[in-house]
Amino acid sequence: MRITIMTIFPEMFEGFLNTSIIKKARLKNIVDIEVADFRQYTLDKHNRVDEYPFGGGQGMVLMCQPLLDCLRDIRRENSHVILMNPTGQQFNQKKAHQLLDYDDIVIICGHYEGYDARISDYVDEEISIGDYILTGGELGAMVVTDAVTRLVDGVISADSTVDETFETGLLEYPQYTKPVEYEGKKVPDVLLSGHHENIRKFRLYESLKKTYLRRPDLLENREFTPEERKMMRQIREELSEEEAE
Amino acid sequence: MRITIMTIFPEMFEGFLNTSIIKKARLKNIVDIEVADFRQYTLDKHNRVDEYPFGGGQGMVLMCQPLLDCLRDIRRENSHVILMNPTGQQFNQKKAHQLLDYDDIVIICGHYEGYDARISDYVDEEISIGDYILTGGELGAMVVTDAVTRLVDGVISADSTVDETFETGLLEYPQYTKPVEYEGKKVPDVLLSGHHENIRKFRLYESLKKTYLRRPDLLENREFTPEERKMMRQIREELSEEEAE
Repeated sequence: MRITIMTIFPEMFEGFLNTSIIKKARLKNIVDIEVADFRQYTLDKHNRVDEYPFGGGQGMVLMCQPLLDCLRDIRRENSHVILMNPTGQQFNQKKAHQLLDYDDIVIICGHYEGYDARISDYVDEEISIGDYILTGGELGAMVVTDAVTRLVDGVISADSTVDETFETGLLEYPQYTKPVEYEGKKVPDVLLSGHHENIRKFRLYESLKKTYLRRPDLLENREFTPEERKMMRQIREELSEEEAE
Repeated sequence: MRITIMTIFPEMFEGFLNTSIIKKARLKNIVDIEVADFRQYTLDKHNRVDEYPFGGGQGMVLMCQPLLDCLRDIRRENSHVILMNPTGQQFNQKKAHQLLDYDDIVIICGHYEGYDARISDYVDEEISIGDYILTGGELGAMVVTDAVTRLVDGVISADSTVDETFETGLLEYPQYTKPVEYEGKKVPDVLLSGHHENIRKFRLYESLKKTYLRRPDLLENREFTPEERKMMRQIREELSEEEAE
């Protein structure tokens, strides 16, 4: 897979490209990640890429010319072109899996007050990483690149992605490691028991409970197994007893 | 405001800290952003910060000792401590505004398969930037830092944040800049008219329409003005006519 990020701040990506999983994926030649500076494509004599918006308003808007000339230069026929935009569709784990279908992805990062709206006609989709405003699209491009890269075959071991939050539709159960006791706080006995079936049940119960408490929206369309339905009843009882105390 | 980011990958932040708005805020001494490497606090002779989880499972879990010893060392009495965690509460623009109330924020970035659950007892809140899995908490810490920093007084002009997506509860209207015509695509006439009231109406209508099409969830609890209610009726008519064609 090749991912090309279009930005006017290429230096922002250095640390990201040379750390951890992304670095490994690049060194193994599993994912090729490139950064293209679209300011280099401007025909403006002052090297500008932005201009005041028609109709007035605060801030500057990215112009069509430099951005789209850069896109035409770097894109391939099979490129899937993504515009990072707070008004785009919400990025999530399902979308990360969908993007694995593409061999070539281009991610465009905006800055300033946004893009000339006509740029939308030249991209395949617009994506937002969340309901908050950032200085530019660079962090969003890193988020998409990281989430997709770690799912590509060979980047991390397949087993380690299975149990994770969102992959199961539930928040992940609590994990514990050494020491058995830290400042009077003990690891739950069941995790030290070696009893695999009890450990599995404990984790499923805690996953359901955490999701119910923190992200009930994730449970709304879930098809519960009989075991999960029983646990949900126990969780509601446990919580109403706690409340009564 | 001081923001301290706890990570085992401090080098990942170099580009982020030296670019654009974040760089300006630091140079103006409005926001002090520091990075602390909690691996330096480990008492393990092999410098490890993670261990296998009790009860089995894939991957490694961050241990209490190095992380919490680092936290105790760098935190101040008034620090608000945030753990980046996919199982945390969703970060959004409202939360970014709430965080402005704190003079001192510590953001902890995890890695590997997560944290020893006992670490939660030492933090004020757990935050997630979205429903996707990333290699670590570093990108989340950058997102939170960026979203908050740009709202701090003096970092960017106050006017330029007012109209933005999420601040108004709506997605931002389309913006256009030079040239008036690009590859046959023209800027809407009203934006060239100089008629301020018509421009305002055009933008409100387009904001409502974009939000209705892309993010209807944002409209669910909105208290519409009479003008907006009328526009929503027009938008539904316009769209049903388009469908009929």
